Amino acid sequence: MYAVEVRDHIMLAHSLPGEVFGPAQGLHGATYVVDVAFLAESLSPDGIVVDIGRAHAALKAALAPLTYANLDALPQFAGKVTTTEFLCRHIFDRIAGAARAGALGPGAEALQRLRVTLNESHVARAWYEGAL
Amino acid sequence: MYAVEVRDHIMLAHSLPGEVFGPAQGLHGATYVVDVAFLAESLSPDGIVVDIGRAHAALKAALAPLTYANLDALPQFAGKVTTTEFLCRHIFDRIAGAARAGALGPGAEALQRLRVTLNESHVARAWYEGAL
Amino acid sequence: MYAVEVRDHIMLAHSLPGEVFGPAQGLHGATYVVDVAFLAESLSPDGIVVDIGRAHAALKAALAPLTYANLDALPQFAGKVTTTEFLCRHIFDRIAGAARAGALGPGAEALQRLRVTLNESHVARAWYEGAL
Amino acid sequence: MYAVEVRDHIMLAHSLPGEVFGPAQGLHGATYVVDVAFLAESLSPDGIVVDIGRAHAALKAALAPLTYANLDALPQFAGKVTTTEFLCRHIFDRIAGAARAGALGPGAEALQRLRVTLNESHVARAWYEGAL
Amino acid sequence: MYAVEVRDHIMLAHSLPGEVFGPAQGLHGATYVVDVAFLAESLSPDGIVVDIGRAHAALKAALAPLTYANLDALPQFAGKVTTTEFLCRHIFDRIAGAARAGALGPGAEALQRLRVTLNESHVARAWYEGAL
Amino acid sequence: MYAVEVRDHIMLAHSLPGEVFGPAQGLHGATYVVDVAFLAESLSPDGIVVDIGRAHAALKAALAPLTYANLDALPQFAGKVTTTEFLCRHIFDRIAGAARAGALGPGAEALQRLRVTLNESHVARAWYEGAL
Repeated sequence: MYAVEVRDHIMLAHSLPGEVFGPAQGLHGATYVVDVAFLAESLSPDGIVVDIGRAHAALKAALAPLTYANLDALPQFAGKVTTTEFLCRHIFDRIAGAARAGALGPGAEALQRLRVTLNESHVARAWYEGAL
Repeated sequence: MYAVEVRDHIMLAHSLPGEVFGPAQGLHGATYVVDVAFLAESLSPDGIVVDIGRAHAALKAALAPLTYANLDALPQFAGKVTTTEFLCRHIFDRIAGAARAGALGPGAEALQRLRVTLNESHVARAWYEGAL
Repeated sequence: MYAVEVRDHIMLAHSLPGEVFGPAQGLHGATYVVDVAFLAESLSPDGIVVDIGRAHAALKAALAPLTYANLDALPQFAGKVTTTEFLCRHIFDRIAGAARAGALGPGAEALQRLRVTLNESHVARAWYEGAL
Repeated sequence: MYAVEVRDHIMLAHSLPGEVFGPAQGLHGATYVVDVAFLAESLSPDGIVVDIGRAHAALKAALAPLTYANLDALPQFAGKVTTTEFLCRHIFDRIAGAARAGALGPGAEALQRLRVTLNESHVARAWYEGAL
Repeated sequence: MYAVEVRDHIMLAHSLPGEVFGPAQGLHGATYVVDVAFLAESLSPDGIVVDIGRAHAALKAALAPLTYANLDALPQFAGKVTTTEFLCRHIFDRIAGAARAGALGPGAEALQRLRVTLNESHVARAWYEGAL
Repeated sequence: MYAVEVRDHIMLAHSLPGEVFGPAQGLHGATYVVDVAFLAESLSPDGIVVDIGRAHAALKAALAPLTYANLDALPQFAGKVTTTEFLCRHIFDRIAGAARAGALGPGAEALQRLRVTLNESHVARAWYEGAL
């Protein structure tokens, strides 16, 4: 399996309602350094998994609504608990949707899986990996 | 598959008997920066893979007997060659045991796999991944 | 000059009023991975710049009021613009105060300077360095 | 599954013909920080996946023809587009060949898979993983 | 002293004529992950060292002529040996010029020093620091 | 001021006698990822601070007696407390001696300062910087 992974970041505020979250129940924030890996069994005729420029652009587009945002105030997250795991899946779904819609360009039909990793500090990160 | 990974470290002494270890046959030591990843197909009702506070605590508990230790002098390692690979598995077994014993809290029943990575320098690391 | 540097982190929310901050004027957040360096021309009789356990504790104490906090709601920051640079100085002042009050233990009288670095993403950081 | 991963690097020039490569069509270059992971289900009698000294040597040998090279001028790459993905596979094939030829020493028969990762900047990397 | 540091990268080809460069005398290449630190004794009325958006833009502008370039073919480097140290100074001079020309915006008059660091691999880097 | 910094590592055992060291009083160990920075106001006629090959070799030579060693058993450290700070200075003195003895080659006369950094974990490091 081949993979290409690109990186970007977001800085956002949110709160995590639920006793399990302890001090993170209050409004706080995070920088998430976000990696998205694109996986395929074979390369395109150009010898790539994905056009890396389009990969960076798709990641940036997926992150745009979260950039410098307060997730507690965004309608699309009303009633949701925006844990790191939840956000991994949310970003996965957006990039997967873009891939299916052709935003990753010709050759991207061969993409089979994506993995989205959110690095939240030097001691914690989360990811979601699934089929396209 | 979802995952959450947390990090801690240990600083220990040991020797590695066996010709294959060359200069590492003598008593020396290592800092191991240890990552443990908890993997599950689905999230708990709180939207998490595992309570991250309990995950950090389980890692710290698994590492405690190794912290500032000379492994050559610990009875539990008598007759063992404490390679990085061996230690990955040793820590895996301790955290897996804690998980099965309920130390990771409610919701952790969904955990399916663990991966324990020991980073021993800027140019070498090892890991063990297995089912819970 | 000798130095010892230790690391911890905080995850907080804030907004940055002022046109220069563009999209960061709204409520958002950050993970700051915080390094504090303790500098001295000579070592203590024990051969150290500072007791590293006390150094970690002093950093943790300085960060405690900022941990999982919304800075916009904290009285001590009313009317302040809590930029990364401002927070570097704020944490510097708290650790410097602790050092002067003896919290770093015997031998810490020789400390001459501190540097506090806030890493806010994989592409940006800030620091403040000054005399004790 | 156990794994051991070692790191080295190369600094090379090349061009990437093909419209998809945009500005990278011209002659430019890259530092690739290269990780190779050796994976096995079980450990050797010595308690290792692979002799780490031989692993480092096998990686260095695989990288030698690419070190300080201009790939556009190397006969073995004539007519090839030397993308990061292509180079992952090229290095994989060389190390896999060395493993099959016994260069990794006794015990290496248990190796099952390799993964070769090329880190090309702080925001992009690629890898190839396959069975031995 | 306060500082803000931002990061970007370039991927270029060049050769280094001179016996001291050994195998790097031939045409090869490098990824340089470039950090530029802006230093000032005091903060602007907004509480910053420099507008971080403008800082990123000034770095990108300084790097643009080197991006995906073959330095051996650029007229501005004819007769020059484009060592990592030389490139640190070259980028320093460009950003310093931009700062003096006002590209960093109001408040940047207080800037006193710059430091440009080129990370060329996981085991080597160089920097140049000087007064503005 | 120009600088070039190179990296290598050592893995050693030692104990730290003295109440201040708490659990580190017993025999334990560490991986030290070691950076040495060479600083000069001006570049050599070749456009470098130091021959990077010789810099790597000088670092390796300075580290050789500590590699896979038990410092408690080495005569040169009898009666010494081998703290990270002490080891920074020890390595500094060895490299400074090599520099003065000409091991860094022609052009190295312009070197003015060295800084030796020992990274002992992901949360702690120490350094010593001084004039040559």
